[in-house]
Amino acid sequence: MSETMLEKPKNRVSYHDSVEEMLIRIKEDGLSSVFSRWDEQEKIRCTFCLQGLSCQLCTQGPCRISEKTGAIKGVCGIDPDAMAMRNLLMRNIMGAATYGHHAFEAFRTLKATGEGKTTFKITDADKLKWMCEKTGINTSQDINKMAVELAELLDREMKVNPDCESIMVEAFAPKKRKQLWRDLNIYPTGVQHDVENCIASCLTNVDGDYVSLAKKALRLGLSTIYTAQIGLEMTQDILFGTPMPHEVDVDLGIMDPDYVNIAFNGHQPWVGVAALQKAKMPEYQERARKAGAKGIHIVGSIETGQEMLQRFPVDDVFVGLMGNWLAIEPFLATGTVDALVMEENCSPPAIDQYAEKYQVALVSVSTIIGVPGAEHKMPYYPAKAEEMAENCINIAIDNFRKRHGKIKPMVPQHKMKAIAGFSTEAVLKAIGNDLNVLVDVIVKGQIKGVVALANCSTLRNGPQDWNTVNITKELIKRDILVVAGGCGNHGLEVAGMCNLDAAEMAGEGLKGICKALGIPPVLSFGTCTDTGRISMLVTALADFLDADISDLPIAVTAPEWMEQKATIDGLFAVAYGAYTHLSPTPFITGAPNLVKLLTEDVEGLTGGKVALGDDPRQAAADIEKHIISKRQKMGLK
Amino acid sequence: MSETMLEKPKNRVSYHDSVEEMLIRIKEDGLSSVFSRWDEQEKIRCTFCLQGLSCQLCTQGPCRISEKTGAIKGVCGIDPDAMAMRNLLMRNIMGAATYGHHAFEAFRTLKATGEGKTTFKITDADKLKWMCEKTGINTSQDINKMAVELAELLDREMKVNPDCESIMVEAFAPKKRKQLWRDLNIYPTGVQHDVENCIASCLTNVDGDYVSLAKKALRLGLSTIYTAQIGLEMTQDILFGTPMPHEVDVDLGIMDPDYVNIAFNGHQPWVGVAALQKAKMPEYQERARKAGAKGIHIVGSIETGQEMLQRFPVDDVFVGLMGNWLAIEPFLATGTVDALVMEENCSPPAIDQYAEKYQVALVSVSTIIGVPGAEHKMPYYPAKAEEMAENCINIAIDNFRKRHGKIKPMVPQHKMKAIAGFSTEAVLKAIGNDLNVLVDVIVKGQIKGVVALANCSTLRNGPQDWNTVNITKELIKRDILVVAGGCGNHGLEVAGMCNLDAAEMAGEGLKGICKALGIPPVLSFGTCTDTGRISMLVTALADFLDADISDLPIAVTAPEWMEQKATIDGLFAVAYGAYTHLSPTPFITGAPNLVKLLTEDVEGLTGGKVALGDDPRQAAADIEKHIISKRQKMGLK
Repeated sequence: MSETMLEKPKNRVSYHDSVEEMLIRIKEDGLSSVFSRWDEQEKIRCTFCLQGLSCQLCTQGPCRISEKTGAIKGVCGIDPDAMAMRNLLMRNIMGAATYGHHAFEAFRTLKATGEGKTTFKITDADKLKWMCEKTGINTSQDINKMAVELAELLDREMKVNPDCESIMVEAFAPKKRKQLWRDLNIYPTGVQHDVENCIASCLTNVDGDYVSLAKKALRLGLSTIYTAQIGLEMTQDILFGTPMPHEVDVDLGIMDPDYVNIAFNGHQPWVGVAALQKAKMPEYQERARKAGAKGIHIVGSIETGQEMLQRFPVDDVFVGLMGNWLAIEPFLATGTVDALVMEENCSPPAIDQYAEKYQVALVSVSTIIGVPGAEHKMPYYPAKAEEMAENCINIAIDNFRKRHGKIKPMVPQHKMKAIAGFSTEAVLKAIGNDLNVLVDVIVKGQIKGVVALANCSTLRNGPQDWNTVNITKELIKRDILVVAGGCGNHGLEVAGMCNLDAAEMAGEGLKGICKALGIPPVLSFGTCTDTGRISMLVTALADFLDADISDLPIAVTAPEWMEQKATIDGLFAVAYGAYTHLSPTPFITGAPNLVKLLTEDVEGLTGGKVALGDDPRQAAADIEKHIISKRQKMGLK
Repeated sequence: MSETMLEKPKNRVSYHDSVEEMLIRIKEDGLSSVFSRWDEQEKIRCTFCLQGLSCQLCTQGPCRISEKTGAIKGVCGIDPDAMAMRNLLMRNIMGAATYGHHAFEAFRTLKATGEGKTTFKITDADKLKWMCEKTGINTSQDINKMAVELAELLDREMKVNPDCESIMVEAFAPKKRKQLWRDLNIYPTGVQHDVENCIASCLTNVDGDYVSLAKKALRLGLSTIYTAQIGLEMTQDILFGTPMPHEVDVDLGIMDPDYVNIAFNGHQPWVGVAALQKAKMPEYQERARKAGAKGIHIVGSIETGQEMLQRFPVDDVFVGLMGNWLAIEPFLATGTVDALVMEENCSPPAIDQYAEKYQVALVSVSTIIGVPGAEHKMPYYPAKAEEMAENCINIAIDNFRKRHGKIKPMVPQHKMKAIAGFSTEAVLKAIGNDLNVLVDVIVKGQIKGVVALANCSTLRNGPQDWNTVNITKELIKRDILVVAGGCGNHGLEVAGMCNLDAAEMAGEGLKGICKALGIPPVLSFGTCTDTGRISMLVTALADFLDADISDLPIAVTAPEWMEQKATIDGLFAVAYGAYTHLSPTPFITGAPNLVKLLTEDVEGLTGGKVALGDDPRQAAADIEKHIISKRQKMGLK
């Protein structure tokens, strides 16, 4: 969009013109969408649920807390603070376990690759060696054996229980944090163990103490990042390459109806990468041409797309990223998609109507997916990735025959450039592998601080990506560098915030750095799964300065968090010691003691805290204030 | 109670006079209880939650399904069937993971015991050997090494993923079921793996297909029983002895205010057993006497109490079982309890008011517990069990000094005899280790069939234990043998259904068998965790007859299920092939296709199904009808 749109627009539901245009078609075609169903739900929202004061766990319930009627506790006796925190912890658990699932698939794929059973290979051997060094694995052995050994170690790490210690935490946690976590009794264990422990705590009549529950959530955040996320991200680098910056195309304008278009959607790039490898072979392109297409295009959809975007150039086969999860229905409505291949969230449940109307084959390549209308279902086995990719291509070519010439395409003419592919290594490379350069620009105030933006996209606090884009604009204007991951990152890419031109929107200091280093003011670090990767950069900075995380001029914002993985990323950030802005406000407002704990008191424990607020200008101003106060404590102006 | 009380009484909230009497004191003392809070919540129940049509997972929500307002799907697009089933699956997951947690602690305790690090020893070496034989472990080695090896194997079993096969399933699943489960794609994996897979499925925008979600619930039920429950039950037998029938005392009348009374509450008997071992030593009794007490009494509370009750005689130290979870607040109000030591559910969150009023020390001996007011918190380490038990005794003696003579005791004069300690081995022993005897009495119709009753206690469908007791009375009257586990079992024990006199309430056929074998018409098999144990008896019968589970004249009832573990036991029973009566009705009534799937269509898949209904007479009649139809198919009259 060209306009600034800092005031919340009343006549739009998305920041993006492409989505707005497609919604007209969707409405004309009589389909419901997330956007239209939002309006329907707005009429009947439950105020108890919104405040965290509704519990549906057991048959003594459902219970609601209502001071007015005298029902100040649930039937079991749970109070409002514990009820809201238990609800929140259950969502944290869902996020943690889903990252655990992704990590399980990653380690399994690495192991099978080391055993020579997959279509993948060890792409970044240096990173493999580095990981082996960090975790105490012999690096003088064959590279594939190393891969197997690392995969086994990482899988074991998710199972670490109180009878043993985590190697990953020891290797990757900030030096100054470890003792603090032990003192607070939130030292992480393996995520799978911790998930089980937390679930058993959430059972009816087990943990009814909001402080105890909140501490479990903090620990679970740490367990998730150190024993699942970082390992899985590094594994994906080992398999598919460590991200390095390069220019890519994004937004719905990347679609060409005359190609067989196969979109890979979710978070786990296994089958997507295998399909890209195949689609680059002339024989597959030829197969598509025989079906009447100009060839095969591989399309990145949401986080899986971003995983691919971070590592592979956009070319005549891989055409870029369509956008984030709220763009999925609009994307399908373009009438250009032949197969939507899904392996994780977000694979929305009512896209069967789109599949039917616009002739899309819905394909699941994971046992976790259950999308109505998905006729093609393949459980994922690493050794079968190639065969699965072949199937996807065949399904898409078949679909092309039914779609092309029959479904009228509608492609919004919006395509944006973005620089994707940042990683800790890429940042270090940009500063000549000398962290002093980064320290120096921060000391000088050219960059006041760094904010990690990691989250989803939601309609709760305004049009799609409106809050995300505006808070980012406000931050970079204040010379605060933004490092982005997740669907929010895709929103920023589509909004033109991740390219070199965006430097013009930054304050003078940051603009100068961007131009000097040839980087955008918003560094695209990938997906929500890259929260761990982002933390590695911050940890490197803290350890380099011999400082604690909570001393640094940094903050975290999740300006449009939507699902459960975002909640565990947020809790991690608080335990990590970061000021953590969350919008929308979690469902905790009916729990005054809990709100106080998370937004105030926890700072005395971890140095981090939750900051609330749905106004992007105010939120950015608050973040700046926090960063300035940390600068002052470091003796910087 | 003396009266029959088959009609739902309007003037009572519990079947038990002891509880009714204590509630008068609780009311007079101005405390709230589960019973009073139930009344408060009854005024403000959410009808959406009751129907399963409320979702609070993400910030696009909270959503409710309301045909009236046109909101027929959630914002994401989820339909009522998938919304209700996802809610249910999340509850199943909570139950499965909690059993996983219990199993983790069991296997960890067995391992440490084999390593000589605990105060426990291998009590049932024959069972250890048998388990090793069943699982392929070398039985010619030292018994302690065997224990370590078995513990490690059982722990690994919970982690079995699709790349490997479960040894426990192979060893313990009914012969005729295995292929069926493979065909239905619900063949179990390790419970910890399956929990993670199911959670990732429940994340927003992943599995929105109620059939897919329901199948995941069925598989999770199987994974839970075969890779957690059976192993943990056998482990407890190995450590503390396999249950054998013996007479015990139950109900609140077991309390003597002049003793130091330490109650062990939850499901995991580690510290309870360690404390019992100590309390039997003269030095500890002497310590209590020095504090002015007559000695130390160990009191069994709910399932932990039942675990102990199944294995240890009631004597001058171990005084029996106080009742089930709805009796906890009344129990504390007797003013006789010095320490309530908790390690799992049900440890209700509002008992701090009781602890204060009646001077009870609240002690947690597990990291999962978070009860407000619990001043004493010890994480469980097997090697520390003895030290923890010592602490518990000291805490209780200290409390006695503050309580005795200061808090006026009130002990309801109700004490009941029950025969506890049934197990597959005990039943086999009773029939001279010849299953033909059991088959014979079933063939002759002296016993028409067997019903497993396993569940909790709830106020949703009537006074505490009213439904449980009445359905049991109706069943035994119809010559149906009842095998009971869980809080429902404790309700039956307190109600006098588990002693030899109860045979008088049975039909002529069953009465004759009871008298001939010297058993009650309701066999107390222990806790809800013994669902797996009960299934072992049924599996033995099926395999002996070379029949499938769904061919047998058996059924399952959970007439007062309350929490999440009960839901996974119920789903297991359906996958196992059993007619499974559930009351109260789960929160699924707003999901018509789901109701049809679970109550009708699933029978065509697994042979089992869910039966609903809150009237105990009708439910028993329906069960009898089912049993008779199975008898007829077997050619029995």
